[in-house]
Amino acid sequence: MVFNEARARKIMADQSIDALVATSPDNVTYASGYWAMSHWARPGGPQVYAVIPADGGASPCLIAGSGNLDHVVDGESWVTEAYRYGFFATKTDGDALSDLDRRYAALLKAPDHGDAASALVAALRDRKLDRARLAIEETGIQPALLEKVRQELPHADIVPGGRVFRAIRTIKTSEEIERLRGAVRATEHGIVAALRLAKPGVAERDLMAEFDRTVITEGGVPVSSMCIGSGPRSALSNCQAGDRRLVAGEVIRFDGGVRYRWYRSDIARIAALGDPGDRVKRYYGALRAGAERAIEAIRPGVRCADVFRIAMDTVKKEGIAHFERSHTGHGIGINNYDAPDLAPKSDELIEENTVLCVETPYYELGFAGLQLENTVVVRAHGAEPLTSLGNELRIV
Amino acid sequence: MVFNEARARKIMADQSIDALVATSPDNVTYASGYWAMSHWARPGGPQVYAVIPADGGASPCLIAGSGNLDHVVDGESWVTEAYRYGFFATKTDGDALSDLDRRYAALLKAPDHGDAASALVAALRDRKLDRARLAIEETGIQPALLEKVRQELPHADIVPGGRVFRAIRTIKTSEEIERLRGAVRATEHGIVAALRLAKPGVAERDLMAEFDRTVITEGGVPVSSMCIGSGPRSALSNCQAGDRRLVAGEVIRFDGGVRYRWYRSDIARIAALGDPGDRVKRYYGALRAGAERAIEAIRPGVRCADVFRIAMDTVKKEGIAHFERSHTGHGIGINNYDAPDLAPKSDELIEENTVLCVETPYYELGFAGLQLENTVVVRAHGAEPLTSLGNELRIV
Repeated sequence: MVFNEARARKIMADQSIDALVATSPDNVTYASGYWAMSHWARPGGPQVYAVIPADGGASPCLIAGSGNLDHVVDGESWVTEAYRYGFFATKTDGDALSDLDRRYAALLKAPDHGDAASALVAALRDRKLDRARLAIEETGIQPALLEKVRQELPHADIVPGGRVFRAIRTIKTSEEIERLRGAVRATEHGIVAALRLAKPGVAERDLMAEFDRTVITEGGVPVSSMCIGSGPRSALSNCQAGDRRLVAGEVIRFDGGVRYRWYRSDIARIAALGDPGDRVKRYYGALRAGAERAIEAIRPGVRCADVFRIAMDTVKKEGIAHFERSHTGHGIGINNYDAPDLAPKSDELIEENTVLCVETPYYELGFAGLQLENTVVVRAHGAEPLTSLGNELRIV
Repeated sequence: MVFNEARARKIMADQSIDALVATSPDNVTYASGYWAMSHWARPGGPQVYAVIPADGGASPCLIAGSGNLDHVVDGESWVTEAYRYGFFATKTDGDALSDLDRRYAALLKAPDHGDAASALVAALRDRKLDRARLAIEETGIQPALLEKVRQELPHADIVPGGRVFRAIRTIKTSEEIERLRGAVRATEHGIVAALRLAKPGVAERDLMAEFDRTVITEGGVPVSSMCIGSGPRSALSNCQAGDRRLVAGEVIRFDGGVRYRWYRSDIARIAALGDPGDRVKRYYGALRAGAERAIEAIRPGVRCADVFRIAMDTVKKEGIAHFERSHTGHGIGINNYDAPDLAPKSDELIEENTVLCVETPYYELGFAGLQLENTVVVRAHGAEPLTSLGNELRIV
């Protein structure tokens, strides 16, 4: 499974947390494998939680609307117990039920707790966690429902859970690394397919559509997080592919990624339609050197801030003396910005099995955006690449 | 623009609200046209707000991280003023800046307010709204930041804003209706394209990929909200296309939709691989009659609960005596579940220029899921369809 259970247990023990309660789409799916369509499609709307008790004595469970219970049995959830709320009509008394149908029918027939807060309170009481220290993720639960939980459980010690999940997710399981590899692969194939169409007169939008279609064929999901910009538009950091048509001699910047089995990618490559000129080549060379030196420095025990400094110093020395940047990389997982940050004040030490996106983007209005971003897994001996496209500026 | 400004002003006046503050991706984009990639891609993470004062005296503005300011000038935002927070490096002093670049550069050079709460407080103070009644949407702002706003503005009367936005969004502008029409069209073309592949032995997953590729070619965005299930799997309400292969004589249920210029679709159709048998045809006929009678009853001034009752009574009378359902439709817009609900306790009256999805789904484990869902705009004379696929059970 994707959940790093061993790390979760250790962090809960270190922080005297008796149970974790995930409430955001990312963390519910991470902690339980449970994915509910409406929870992901309508953030802030349907309430879905996953309760993960600290010790093996109590069982994990889900809190979900009755209309989302099919995802418990027909999906990848490894948590099989659920507390439901609300009415949902499904006829369950047929005589040709499969095993899956029977498990689904049992969930639908369990008591209706009325609302998500009451269902969560019942789940916690059943687990004797009503006087416990509970790390409840603060962003996914509606404020009024969290208030109701506080009132119903006056003796519980409720602390914010978002930072706890972030700490757990820093170290990836092998299943997570395989999914991240799949996300990178779909993204790389999408970039290659889009570049096959690139020639003067083709619109940015046409490259984007080809990227998206290719990602789908590879089993990925486009999530409106790929930036494609050409010429001076490439200097807009979040450039969305538009009607602008490609021009000979200009660069095309790709930055971003997709989802693959819920896991994210974030990589960047620069192409040019023919020779983009000396300044682009010189600047790109400096940025590439910065990203490459940073990756060479990555291994367990190295300070994040030191990797940042190596990237910055290299880019400045190799050709962009005025280079500025708030960070030169970040973790990635089910969320696009997992810990740690490769930033000037990041005192954290890099750990084995962290997955990092390493990048040195440069944006100059009226000129171009230039960037190389690669994804690596931290292994005992150093960084192992998940990206396989070459690092060169691609002339098409 | 998509924002129904006249209705917003009226509702604010009726409820003595001096300013609206949108904080969720849906409502920020709705109220301002501003779409920030990371706000949409990472719900609960990057903080973006839109401030809409009640009267024409004060100007609307955005609160955004410095790294998201390019979307203010290169996108569809009709709000041009922004309060930024955080550091973001972009070189802005080149000599070949376009008008757009210059506007972007000016936003980047404005003061850095440090964090989103401080930027929001500054924006409200500048508009003399620090002692005003503020409807702040409660789901998109991080709780600690809302608390900071409360402390900085002790004389402001802060009330929950989510329900206010929901009320405004009930009545669609013509621009919204055109986008909803585009979302329906992309979805219909996707269903037709997927069904072209449908034959025994083809996997559900293959239909889904063809649906998604077609949606992209039509300018839409797949958002993992289309359910495709075949045979008994179709009875799982949120059925996600899987490895199951189509079998002759079984039904295929499509339910859900896509995004098109941020607007959503939600429609449903049933197909069958050859003759699905009498019970499927009889039940589908009843469900179709229920959905059709409900649409015929829709016009301004009709109670939502009455439309619900007509749908329910028709389905029961026409062939499914045990039919149960919590609602038979809902509004749709930039959110998949806009007001009103066509539900038994919905006392609201239907209004002109509401857009409604009308549906009569039936799920029976071990048998099938059967459903017809259409989308209509409420006009003075009655319901005008946005869907154009026929209502028949499609035999392929």
